[in-house]
Parts: sequence; structure tokens; C-alpha cells
Amino acid sequence: MYEDFFQNRLEKLFDSAGIAVDGKKPWDIRIHDRGTYPKTVLQGNLGFGESYMDGWWDCDDLDELFFRILTTGIDNKVGAVSKAVESIAGAIWNMQTPSRAFTVGKRHYDVGNDLFQKMLDPLMIYSCAFWEGAANLEEAQEIKLRMVFDKLAVEPGMTLLDIGCGWGGTARFAAENFGAKVVGVTISKEQAELAAARCRNFDVDIRLMDYRSVKGTFDRIVSLGMLEHVGHKNYRTFFDTARRCLKPDGRLLIQSIGSNEPSSCTDPWIGTYIFPNSMLPSASQIAIGYEGRFVLEDWHSFSHDYALTLKAWDKNITLNRPLLKNEYDDSFFRMWRYYLLSCSGAFRARAIQLWQVLLSPCGIKGDCRIPHEPVHRQFRDKGTGHWKPLQMRAPGHGQHQESPRSGAASES
Amino acid sequence: MYEDFFQNRLEKLFDSAGIAVDGKKPWDIRIHDRGTYPKTVLQGNLGFGESYMDGWWDCDDLDELFFRILTTGIDNKVGAVSKAVESIAGAIWNMQTPSRAFTVGKRHYDVGNDLFQKMLDPLMIYSCAFWEGAANLEEAQEIKLRMVFDKLAVEPGMTLLDIGCGWGGTARFAAENFGAKVVGVTISKEQAELAAARCRNFDVDIRLMDYRSVKGTFDRIVSLGMLEHVGHKNYRTFFDTARRCLKPDGRLLIQSIGSNEPSSCTDPWIGTYIFPNSMLPSASQIAIGYEGRFVLEDWHSFSHDYALTLKAWDKNITLNRPLLKNEYDDSFFRMWRYYLLSCSGAFRARAIQLWQVLLSPCGIKGDCRIPHEPVHRQFRDKGTGHWKPLQMRAPGHGQHQESPRSGAASES
Repeated sequence: MYEDFFQNRLEKLFDSAGIAVDGKKPWDIRIHDRGTYPKTVLQGNLGFGESYMDGWWDCDDLDELFFRILTTGIDNKVGAVSKAVESIAGAIWNMQTPSRAFTVGKRHYDVGNDLFQKMLDPLMIYSCAFWEGAANLEEAQEIKLRMVFDKLAVEPGMTLLDIGCGWGGTARFAAENFGAKVVGVTISKEQAELAAARCRNFDVDIRLMDYRSVKGTFDRIVSLGMLEHVGHKNYRTFFDTARRCLKPDGRLLIQSIGSNEPSSCTDPWIGTYIFPNSMLPSASQIAIGYEGRFVLEDWHSFSHDYALTLKAWDKNITLNRPLLKNEYDDSFFRMWRYYLLSCSGAFRARAIQLWQVLLSPCGIKGDCRIPHEPVHRQFRDKGTGHWKPLQMRAPGHGQHQESPRSGAASES
Repeated sequence: MYEDFFQNRLEKLFDSAGIAVDGKKPWDIRIHDRGTYPKTVLQGNLGFGESYMDGWWDCDDLDELFFRILTTGIDNKVGAVSKAVESIAGAIWNMQTPSRAFTVGKRHYDVGNDLFQKMLDPLMIYSCAFWEGAANLEEAQEIKLRMVFDKLAVEPGMTLLDIGCGWGGTARFAAENFGAKVVGVTISKEQAELAAARCRNFDVDIRLMDYRSVKGTFDRIVSLGMLEHVGHKNYRTFFDTARRCLKPDGRLLIQSIGSNEPSSCTDPWIGTYIFPNSMLPSASQIAIGYEGRFVLEDWHSFSHDYALTLKAWDKNITLNRPLLKNEYDDSFFRMWRYYLLSCSGAFRARAIQLWQVLLSPCGIKGDCRIPHEPVHRQFRDKGTGHWKPLQMRAPGHGQHQESPRSGAASES
């Protein structure tokens, strides 16, 4: 009886976003377990995601489903209900989230290099690519890295610090293509070992250490997809450290996912299953962090490109699933796809942003223009080894408003 | 005797910036009245500027003088002294600033349209131009306006609100070149009358009103050089009003001078003589103002272009001085040049910034790219009436570090 109430409530919300239960469109959802209704209404995305992981519902186009939910804002209406009945829910439901988080948190922690090698491009760049002029993920990551080092104006012989170097792809690219002498730091032993192996023949020094312990000063600093893990209370420390490690005429480029409003925590599902202790900075939180230490040179937003990146990763995971199925079970794959495609839909809906922020200690003097694409409009074709011209469009004149592909929510 | 102390102090500071008293370089200063020393050391820029207005000192290249002062940071050292001895100074000096401010404040208030007509480009745009591809001020303002309306993706028939429309040049340009239906608001009666006259044959409605009283919604909103006059306590109101006046799929472009750090007041000399009640927003102050109301689309910095704009205005004023000398006395011209060239040096030193911030209510969906130059790389040659291609350079790869042109401070 009380499930009818929740079913009615959730179906009405879905209906306002053009989503039907057991409908025929790719973004409609098929409910296998009616527990989905109360769990979602009461817990929002945490309950919706856990229901999906448990196989309680399915959807052929998760990306479009989340684009619709977030564009119409019905997630906030679930949130409102969630807050109002939070205490009642606690009494009714024996929520096993803590122990469950431990289980799956450990499972996520154990996600190995093999999964990322199958999911990512050959350089293993685990952050948003730049798709302008790119035919595929590999090209899009190369174009992104070229743009990053052009914004930084990296020149041969310059020293470069890569904070949160991951598997070393960015460091290696800077050494190979821009002649930089790179120090890359990571706090993951697994990443550091693979990064060191992959950078062996280049002027790259991978260090397993906290970035706050880095000594010396560098000509340039880059940090791609690391600020999301810093936490707003540590932003001042982050920028203090970067300032200390940077020469006075240096440049700092940060790429980060951004939030439209200040917050101090992440989405509960993402925090539980994917990135514990992560949080997305808002523009004011970033600015408060760097003001007095750095001068703003450029703030570039290309959020839609992260949707394309995440969908490319999802495609790779799906294609390579037969090679991975011994190590990762069905529930893991469901969790992982939910992560990739709910985020992809969120970027398309502009519920979250992707930013590159370029800073300098004292302001770059003179009439320097910061490019929003690679300066050299060509890149290496990995197949032939030849240089290929970029196919850049003219910048977006006109209103490229993307609406939900059809259905009741197209008025948004 | 006590003047020796101040002379010694100021000369040492100047020396550290490569500035000599009675030296031969264009940026050296010639002291005619020794009162300059204590007044500057005690009052910082307020005293330095008032000394200049009174003819106590001269300098052939004020722009370079201020670039040197601000690049080496000696202004802060004067500030530090100023704060320490503020109370003593009050006892020693009978500072006549209030009555004096009244006199000159009134004089500034009476600055008429004729001065601005002689100083500005033919469209009378009183904000930073964009010099990439421009041969002169007129072209640079046209290129700036094209870039603004390309960022806004203004299309024929769209409604546009211009908050702080000045003499109507921006409104007229949007109507004439982009087919917009424009409402321009200003609180200056003198501006409104001239703006209405200059826009008479275009689809432009100039209104003498406070922007907070605007009714209705618009496709686009533009506000160039107006946020500097809003005051940080009113930023929320500013963005609330803009949100209320903008359609959900609209865009808002703000051009503003920016501060590197949050503040609540302006430079005392500028506040007293040029822009009473003005203050420069920092990035965090702007972001705090719009977060929750708007999504960030782009944050473009081109501070060096304001130095070029101010120097072009100074050139026009200097050339047209014979035509203006009956209405404006020598002291006014000294004040006005001090304003234009100290700001020009401040932009070159990156002590202050010039920003264009593009916002949208819900995020522009799809793969829209925000241009950092006009989309159509041509503009109308006012002499021949023909379209001329823009001469755009490749974006600034490499480090265009501008240093003081020579002298002791070149290590900065």
C-alpha cells in the first residue's frame, strides 16, 4: 500500500521529464523490483543507484535518462522528499549502507590497472578530453594535452610539476612532445609503479609522495583531475603549495570538474561507490582558494566534452567486458556503467561543469593570448605516424541548445 | 629636516623600481615641490596624485612610471608606511581632502559629453576595446563589440537589454549589425539624451531608469563597464535582477575591471577624483554573486588591451586639448591624464584585470564553443565602407613577458 504512494510519486516525476516506466523509448525504464520506488523517493540518487546495481531496474540509455532527470530538475524534487522523510525512513528501513559501502568501497579500491587500461586511451589519461577536431578518444586526449601545454607555454628544457600524475601519460606527453623535464607525483603506489614503467625512456621522474612534500621550484605546474579530491578546507593549502613550487614568472593550469554552487560534500552515491572523500569545487571556492596567491589568466569551460569522454570510456568497457569478466562481476559492471553514464548525462545537462583554470603568480605581462585550442593545428596519427591537421570548426556562433531528444520535457 | 626623511625613503623606493628623481629616462620624475615626498609617503597614491595635479612633479611617461611602481610592488611599501603613520599624519597635516574632493568632485561631475566625444571612438564606447587585429581605437571597439555579440550568439529579432548603456554605442551597434531589438538603460540624464539622439534611426529604446526597475524578459543581456559601480553588497541584487530579466535559454555577458583580491573600496585617489563609490570586484566576489542563479560559460581575461585603450584615449585628449582648453583648465588635464595613464600602467602591471564573463541561467546545452575573437573575421572599414579582414595572430604560444623597458627593475 505504501509502495503505491511512492510508485505514484516517482512515476509522476518521471512523466514530467518524458520518461515512462516500461515504455518503449531507449531512456524509459523497466522496473523489475518495486522496491525501486520507495528507495529512490526516500534516498534520491543513492537509492536509485543501489537499486540499479542490484538489478531492480534497467534502461537502455542511462545517459539520456540522466540528462532528462537533471535538465528538468526532478532530482531536486526527490531530494526535497528525501530530506522531509529522512527521519521516518531511518525508522522504517534498516539501511545497510555503511557495511555495504565497506564491501563495495573495498571492491572499488581494488579496481586494478587492467580495468583502466581497457577503458582509457593508450596514454591512460583519466580526465576529460577535448573533442574539437578529434575523431576518437585517443586523438581527443592528445588534442587536450597539446592545448594544456600551449596554454602553459611549455618550452624545451622547462621544468614541469604534474600534481596527481596518474599513470604518467601527461608527464610522458610533455617530455616527449614539448621537451619538458617532468616531476610527477601521486599518492597511489599502484599508479606510481605503472607510471614509472611507462615513462622509463623519457625525462620524467615519478615520485610516490604527497604533493605538499614537493621541494624546489618549477617553471610550470599542471594538475588534471586532482582538485576534486582535495576538499574545500584544503584549497588554500593546495594553492599555497603550488605558489611555493612555482617560479614567479611561471604558470599553473588546473583542470577540474566544477559545481554550480558551493558545497562541502559530493553526491551520496558517487561518494559511497566511486570517489570517497571527493567533492566538486564551485567557482567561488576555487577563486577564494587562489586569490592573493595567483592572478587569473583564463577560465575555460568545456563541460560537454566530458560527456563525450565518459561515453567513450563506457564504450571501451562494454567492448572489453569479455576480457574483464573473470575479475569483475555483473554488479560491478552495473555500478561502473551507472557511474560513467549518470555523470555523462549530468555534464550534458550542465548540472556539473568541466573547467580549465590558468593562473600565474604575478600576471603574464604583454599581449599574450591564451588559446582555447592547440596552437599547432595538427597532431600525430598513431596509425601512420604522420602529422594530421586538426579539423577545427569555427567557434559556436548561434544557439546549439540540446534538448531532450523528444518527449514531454522538450520545453526545458 | 623631516622632509629629508621622506625624500630619502621615497627615493630609495623609486630606485628599487629603476626610477630616478631628476633622471633622464622618460619614466624618471622631476620634483618641483619637495612637499611631494611627505605627501606621497604618508598618503600613498592619494598624495602622489594630488601632488601631480598641483604641478609639484612631472614625468614624461606616466604609464611606464606606474608600470614600474606596480610591477615591483613599491606601492605596497608606501601603503605600509601610510598605515603606520596615519594617525601622526593627521596631527601634523591639516588635510583638506574633504572640501577639495567636493570642489573637484563637482568638477568631475560636470565633465560633459564634449570631453568624451573628443576622447572616445565614434561609437563613444567607454570601456575596454579588443585590439587583436585592430589598427586603431575605432576598429578595436568594433572588434570588441562583434566578439561580445558573438559570445552572446545574438541573432536577428532577438531582444537585448543593455544595462548601463552609456551613450548608446553598444545598443546601436547590436541593432545595426546583429538585428537585435535593444533596450538600453542608464541613470545619467545627459547620457540618455545623447544616446537616444544617436540611436534615433535604429530599433533601440533608451530609458532613463535604474536597471532594477526593468520589466519583462529578454533573450540576451549585456553590461559593459557597469559592474564596477555596483558595489559588492549589491552583487546579489544585480544578478537576481539579470536572472529575472533573462529568458531561461538566454545569455548574460558582463565586462568588468577586476581586482586580484576581494575588497570593499577603491583606490583613494580614484575614488576621490574619478569614480566616487566605485569598487573593483574580485573573481570570488563575482562568483559568489552569480552562483545559484547562473552557470559559468566562459571567463575571458584581456587586461593588456585596456592599457592600449587608455593610451588611445590619452592620445585623443592630448591631440584635442586645444579644442577643450576653454572648458577644462590645466589642473583638470593633469588629473585626467593621471587617471588614464596610472590605470594604463596598472593594467600592464596586471595589478588590475579586464574580464568578460559569460553566464547562462541553466547552462548552454550541446557542444557550443565560446569564441575569444569575432566569429566573422572581418569588419567594416569606416573610410571606404568595405569589409576588411581581421589580421588575427596565432594565439600566444610562448612567454610574452613584458618587463620594465630597462633599468634596475628588470629582474621583476
